[in-house]
Amino acid sequence: MREFRYRFRVEFYDVDSMDVVWHGNYVKFLEAARCAFLRDVGFEYMNFRDIGVVLPIIKMEFKFIKPLFFGDECEIRVRLNEYETTLKLNYEIYKDNTLIAKASTAQAYVDIDNKLTLFSVPEPFLKALRSRYEI
Amino acid sequence: MREFRYRFRVEFYDVDSMDVVWHGNYVKFLEAARCAFLRDVGFEYMNFRDIGVVLPIIKMEFKFIKPLFFGDECEIRVRLNEYETTLKLNYEIYKDNTLIAKASTAQAYVDIDNKLTLFSVPEPFLKALRSRYEI
Amino acid sequence: MREFRYRFRVEFYDVDSMDVVWHGNYVKFLEAARCAFLRDVGFEYMNFRDIGVVLPIIKMEFKFIKPLFFGDECEIRVRLNEYETTLKLNYEIYKDNTLIAKASTAQAYVDIDNKLTLFSVPEPFLKALRSRYEI
Amino acid sequence: MREFRYRFRVEFYDVDSMDVVWHGNYVKFLEAARCAFLRDVGFEYMNFRDIGVVLPIIKMEFKFIKPLFFGDECEIRVRLNEYETTLKLNYEIYKDNTLIAKASTAQAYVDIDNKLTLFSVPEPFLKALRSRYEI
Repeated sequence: MREFRYRFRVEFYDVDSMDVVWHGNYVKFLEAARCAFLRDVGFEYMNFRDIGVVLPIIKMEFKFIKPLFFGDECEIRVRLNEYETTLKLNYEIYKDNTLIAKASTAQAYVDIDNKLTLFSVPEPFLKALRSRYEI
Repeated sequence: MREFRYRFRVEFYDVDSMDVVWHGNYVKFLEAARCAFLRDVGFEYMNFRDIGVVLPIIKMEFKFIKPLFFGDECEIRVRLNEYETTLKLNYEIYKDNTLIAKASTAQAYVDIDNKLTLFSVPEPFLKALRSRYEI
Repeated sequence: MREFRYRFRVEFYDVDSMDVVWHGNYVKFLEAARCAFLRDVGFEYMNFRDIGVVLPIIKMEFKFIKPLFFGDECEIRVRLNEYETTLKLNYEIYKDNTLIAKASTAQAYVDIDNKLTLFSVPEPFLKALRSRYEI
Repeated sequence: MREFRYRFRVEFYDVDSMDVVWHGNYVKFLEAARCAFLRDVGFEYMNFRDIGVVLPIIKMEFKFIKPLFFGDECEIRVRLNEYETTLKLNYEIYKDNTLIAKASTAQAYVDIDNKLTLFSVPEPFLKALRSRYEI
């Protein structure tokens, strides 16, 4: 299983009065990385919507190890942890070779119309995943 | 024409690395004040949606005079400037009796379905405005 | 051990294109609740700073159960989980009597000057906690 | 006078419940473009700080012409409008060849220590500007 890498730069508006990235902004970094990962897979939120599925976050966890500063250039390494009943991704944020933070998210596959959780991976997404990752 | 007053407190996440409120966060303060104003009028975004109208911001202007700090308790004074063809509001942000910032927003009345600008105030909103303000 | 309650309203800017509160905004809600909790204790971030201590978030976890919508009025129930070596708080977000989300945060006590983690609760904070909570 | 171009992508967290970019997020786009412009000039916020100067925003204006959607790839064209007593920049946001929004910001040159506005461009910044732009 390969990992997907997403690069970003810390902006001025990301930083709080302690001169480090405000912890809540890591949620944005993860989302940008996750969307880039799905773009790379070839099946994005728009594609899910087209088949009547949305992917609300049902769980997220963060461990902050070192601070990030304005102007830092970073990399998020995204790994697919689970996709069968929920979509679980693990993230590691690096600045150069220093581990800055670890995180994970879990998303449900939810039917747009009846709002029910599907508990199984939508077929077209599974197909896209398989064509890109060895699962 | 009376003015509407909205109170808020500056949170830690509002403050940037210069220890003052980041200028972009004033857009949030205005929106919260504007929604409170419409709640007071008795005709909110939900009510607009029910009659098939949305109110996108088409213009906004800010003048920043003094900084705000974490924990500051402030007041926004909202005044109705125009409502006939677009909704224009003026805002003054005060900390105690010190003027912190001035701002204005303009919103179009837009038909949800065909995305066309109406250029005239929806009747139910006008009625609600009139029952509350001397216009 | 009593719990502290903090009330807030969901604003328009909190909501995403699925018409529900974007998951990242819960981090803000928690921070506002946490600061209100510390205000209630009588020992805020400013007081920590005055004794040379900052409290970076080192861990946070969220479980999202039900969605929140624009205009919802909610309550966060904050409970002190640990304070001896790190400050750990648990949060439950309620709309009326429905549990919306559960979360927890852990903060280190860090010396501002040498950036070292203290691993023990600063005395003035402990005193303030004890005068308010039965610990 | 050349213009500086900055590219960005609209993320999911930028979009509001009307499925378009929330107006307040344009402030972030501008700041990222402005910082990239200063990076290109070779004199960034950090360099200002090193010579004891900060650049608070004292004015900003936005005109929104067309909406932006999740996933849109855009370009901001930044033009230097004034630098002698305040730093004024003009911005045009384009998606392909469609003008999406126009904006401007004004920043004061402020002495970090005494908080006084300088009303004149700091010499090292002027030098950097001149080596990059024909002014």
